[in-house]
Amino acid sequence: MYQFPHKNILDTDQFTKQDLDFILEKTNIMKELLHSGKSFGLLHGKLLASLFFEASTRTRLSFESAMERLGGRVISTVGFQFSSISKGETLYDTMKMVEAYADIAVIRHPVEGSSRIAAGAVKMPVINAGDGAGQHPTQALLDLYTILSEKGTLENITIGFVGDLKYGRTIHSLIKALKFYKVHVVLISPEELKLPDDYKKNLLGSALSFEETTDIKKIWDCDVIYVTRIQEERFPDHKEYDRLKETYKVNKELILASKKNTTVLHPLPRVTELSTDVDDLPNAAYFKQAEYGVIVRMVLLCLCLGKEF
Amino acid sequence: MYQFPHKNILDTDQFTKQDLDFILEKTNIMKELLHSGKSFGLLHGKLLASLFFEASTRTRLSFESAMERLGGRVISTVGFQFSSISKGETLYDTMKMVEAYADIAVIRHPVEGSSRIAAGAVKMPVINAGDGAGQHPTQALLDLYTILSEKGTLENITIGFVGDLKYGRTIHSLIKALKFYKVHVVLISPEELKLPDDYKKNLLGSALSFEETTDIKKIWDCDVIYVTRIQEERFPDHKEYDRLKETYKVNKELILASKKNTTVLHPLPRVTELSTDVDDLPNAAYFKQAEYGVIVRMVLLCLCLGKEF
Amino acid sequence: MYQFPHKNILDTDQFTKQDLDFILEKTNIMKELLHSGKSFGLLHGKLLASLFFEASTRTRLSFESAMERLGGRVISTVGFQFSSISKGETLYDTMKMVEAYADIAVIRHPVEGSSRIAAGAVKMPVINAGDGAGQHPTQALLDLYTILSEKGTLENITIGFVGDLKYGRTIHSLIKALKFYKVHVVLISPEELKLPDDYKKNLLGSALSFEETTDIKKIWDCDVIYVTRIQEERFPDHKEYDRLKETYKVNKELILASKKNTTVLHPLPRVTELSTDVDDLPNAAYFKQAEYGVIVRMVLLCLCLGKEF
Repeated sequence: MYQFPHKNILDTDQFTKQDLDFILEKTNIMKELLHSGKSFGLLHGKLLASLFFEASTRTRLSFESAMERLGGRVISTVGFQFSSISKGETLYDTMKMVEAYADIAVIRHPVEGSSRIAAGAVKMPVINAGDGAGQHPTQALLDLYTILSEKGTLENITIGFVGDLKYGRTIHSLIKALKFYKVHVVLISPEELKLPDDYKKNLLGSALSFEETTDIKKIWDCDVIYVTRIQEERFPDHKEYDRLKETYKVNKELILASKKNTTVLHPLPRVTELSTDVDDLPNAAYFKQAEYGVIVRMVLLCLCLGKEF
Repeated sequence: MYQFPHKNILDTDQFTKQDLDFILEKTNIMKELLHSGKSFGLLHGKLLASLFFEASTRTRLSFESAMERLGGRVISTVGFQFSSISKGETLYDTMKMVEAYADIAVIRHPVEGSSRIAAGAVKMPVINAGDGAGQHPTQALLDLYTILSEKGTLENITIGFVGDLKYGRTIHSLIKALKFYKVHVVLISPEELKLPDDYKKNLLGSALSFEETTDIKKIWDCDVIYVTRIQEERFPDHKEYDRLKETYKVNKELILASKKNTTVLHPLPRVTELSTDVDDLPNAAYFKQAEYGVIVRMVLLCLCLGKEF
Repeated sequence: MYQFPHKNILDTDQFTKQDLDFILEKTNIMKELLHSGKSFGLLHGKLLASLFFEASTRTRLSFESAMERLGGRVISTVGFQFSSISKGETLYDTMKMVEAYADIAVIRHPVEGSSRIAAGAVKMPVINAGDGAGQHPTQALLDLYTILSEKGTLENITIGFVGDLKYGRTIHSLIKALKFYKVHVVLISPEELKLPDDYKKNLLGSALSFEETTDIKKIWDCDVIYVTRIQEERFPDHKEYDRLKETYKVNKELILASKKNTTVLHPLPRVTELSTDVDDLPNAAYFKQAEYGVIVRMVLLCLCLGKEF
C-alpha cells in the first residue's frame, strides 16, 4: 500500500505523481472532515512552531488556522528577532532550540534554500512556507487542488497563465506539479516576461503540452485562467510598464467573452491586473483558493506528523 | 421571544433599548458562567481572527482573552503587514481571505468606517474594536455594564463625566447608549472641551437628562464619576493646558468629599487626571472595568456566533 | 509535609535548598508526564499572559510552549505597545489590567526590578523571564536541572565556568543556586572578566568550593563545562578582544582532551566561543538545555498556580 514518504515539505520537485494524487485525494477527505466538524481534534496535543523570519501575514494565518482547525496549538514568531539568523549556521542553532519547543515547524525565510537547512538541522518535520526566490510548495499544491476541485479533473483541460511568467514564483511551482497531468497550457505574456527556457525544457516529454502567445484574447479558449501581477520594477521604461499593465489586465468584459464555465484564479494579493468587477461572476474562484489553502495545509500537517485520517 | 438581531457589532447606534437590556442580562449570566468555570467550552472549535491594523494591546488582549475563556481559538495579527490595506478596496480582499481562515473577526483600524467595509465583504460576523475617530462600541457596552453592576441599576442615578467631552470617543459612545435610561448626566469640562452640540441634540426627548458645568466640584453629587484625559495637543497655549490639567484632576481628597458610595470610572490608560491615591478607595472601579470588558466581549462573541448560553 | 511556598518566581535568591530540591524532583516527574503524553491537560482552562516588553524570542517561545504543553492557553504581546510602560507606576496599571485577562503572567522587561513591581500590583502569580541586568531565575533552574540530569547528581562534581564571569547574568544566577550543593567550581576567565567579589563573598561558608584561573586547559578536569560568550563591547582595545576570543574558545580538540564524560553546556545563542564541531560529540548537552527549559517552566507554571501533579 502507498505510504506518504515525506517527512518535510520543501520543494514541489520532491513529489511524484503518486504523491500528488494522494495529497489531492486526502484533501477531498479533509474537506469533508472540516465541513462536518470532524477535523477538530486530529492534532490534539500537537504543537506547531510558526517561524516567519519574513512577514507574510496571509500564509502565516493560513497555516495557523490549519493547525487550530485540527485542534493543535501554535507558537508563533514574526521577524528577525533571533540574532544573526541570516547565516545558515545560526539558523541551524535556532532550529535545534525550536525542536525543543514544538512537534513541527513551518518556516518562511527571505533566503533561498533556508528551509532545507532548517529541515536538515532537526528530526521534526519542517514545511517550507516560501524561501526567497525559491520554492513555495504549499501554494502550488493548493493551486493544483483548486483546479481539480473547480473543474472536476486534471485531464484534458486548457489552462491559461497570464502576466509575468518570467519571475512569477507561483507559476513556476505550479507548472512543475502540472507536468504530470494531461493538460494544455497557454502561456500568455509580453515578450519580456516569457517563461524561462529552463522551465520549458523541463516540460519536454511530460504529459503537459503548451503554447506561447502575447495575445491576451487567447484566454477565451481556456478552462482555467490563472492571472498574475506584472511588477513595475521589472521595467526601466515607465511607459512600457503602463502599456503592458493595461494590455494584460483581466476584467469582466474579457471573462464574459470567454468560455462560459471558465475558472479565474489569482494567488492574491492583486492590484490592477484583475479587475474587481470579476468578483461577482460565478467564474471567480480566487477567494476559494484561500479556503482550499487552509485545507491543503491541514492535510500536509497531518501527513508530516504521521496522523492518519 | 426576543432574538438578538445583529450579526455584526459595528456601532453603538445599532442597538435598541431591548438589545442593550438583553446584552446586560446576558453579561450577568456570563459572569456566573465564568466564575463557576462553565464558560470554557462554549466556543469550542471556533476560531477568531484578531485583526489589529493599529496596535491597541489592551483591547486586543481583552478580546483574545474573551475568546480563549470560551474555549475558542485565536489567530492574530498586529500592524499593516497586509499590503496597501488602507484602501477600502483592498480591505475587502483581505477580509475575503480572512473569511477562509476564521469563523469571526475582530477588527481595529485607524480609518473611520473601516469596520463597516470589512463587515460588508464577508458572511462571517465582524466586531469593531475601534476605527479611527469612529465608534468603539464594545467599550460603551462594558462601561454601561460596569455602571449597572456597581450601582445595581441604570435608573435614577447621577453620572458625572469629567474632562475632555469634545474629543473623547469613549464618552460619545457611552452617552448614546445611556440615553435609553432615566439617568441624570452632569457634563463637567472646560469651555473649550464641551460636548459638541450634535451629541446634545441627539439627547433631546430621550430618557436621559443633563446639565453642563465647568465646576469640578459638581462631582460631589454624582453616583458615578467617569474621568477622561485632557490631551495636551488640543491646546496651542501650553500654560492653558497646564492650568486645566490641574483643575480637572480627580484625586483622593475630591472623592472623599463626594457621596460615600460614588463609583469612579476611567477607560484607562490614565496619566495625571486620575490620581493613584484613589486606587485604594472602595470607590475605585476602573480596574473592574477591564474585568467586565472581557465578560462583555465573551457575550458578544457568543451572540454574534449564534451560541446560546 | 513540604508545601511550595512561592506565588511568584522573581529571583534565584528566593529559594531555599528545600525549594530547589523540590523543583528538581518535580521536574523529573514532569519529564515523565510530558513523554508519556500525560502533562497535556494539567492547566486546562488556565490562561497565561506572555508579556515581553523586550523581545526575547527563545524565552518567550519556551514559556508559551510550556503553557501549551500543559493544555493551557496563551495571550501574548511583544514590545512597548503599552504606553509609557517604562515608568513603574504605569507598569502597575498595566498589570492591573492584565490581571483581568489572565490567570498568570510571565514578564520580560529591560528595567531591573520590574518583575517585582509587576508582582506587587496583582494577586495572580508572576514569573520573571529576565529584567535588565537583574535576575533570570528560570534560566538558573533549567541549568541546575540540566546538570543534575546529565550527571545524575549535584554532589561531588567539578563544574567549570568559562568566558565572561563578570557580566554574565546566567552564571551569576546559577552560582547562587549551586551554593547549596557540594560542588567544586572552577572559574575560568581572563583577568578583566573575573567573577565580581560580591558574588565570591556570597559563596563563603556555603557547600560550594571554588578556584579561579585564567587557564582554559583547566576544563580538562571538569565534569561539566559551562561556556559563555565574551562580548566585544566590553573591550576598548579591539586586538585584546580578538586575542581573548581565541583563547577562551571551546572546540572539539579541547573537549576530546577533557574527561571522557564531561558535559558541555551553553545558554545560547553562541557565536564563536563554542565551536560547532562540538555539536556531534556525545558531550554536547546545550540543545538539551532548551528541552529541559520547557519542562522546568511547565513545573513552575503548575506550582505557581497551585496545580498538583
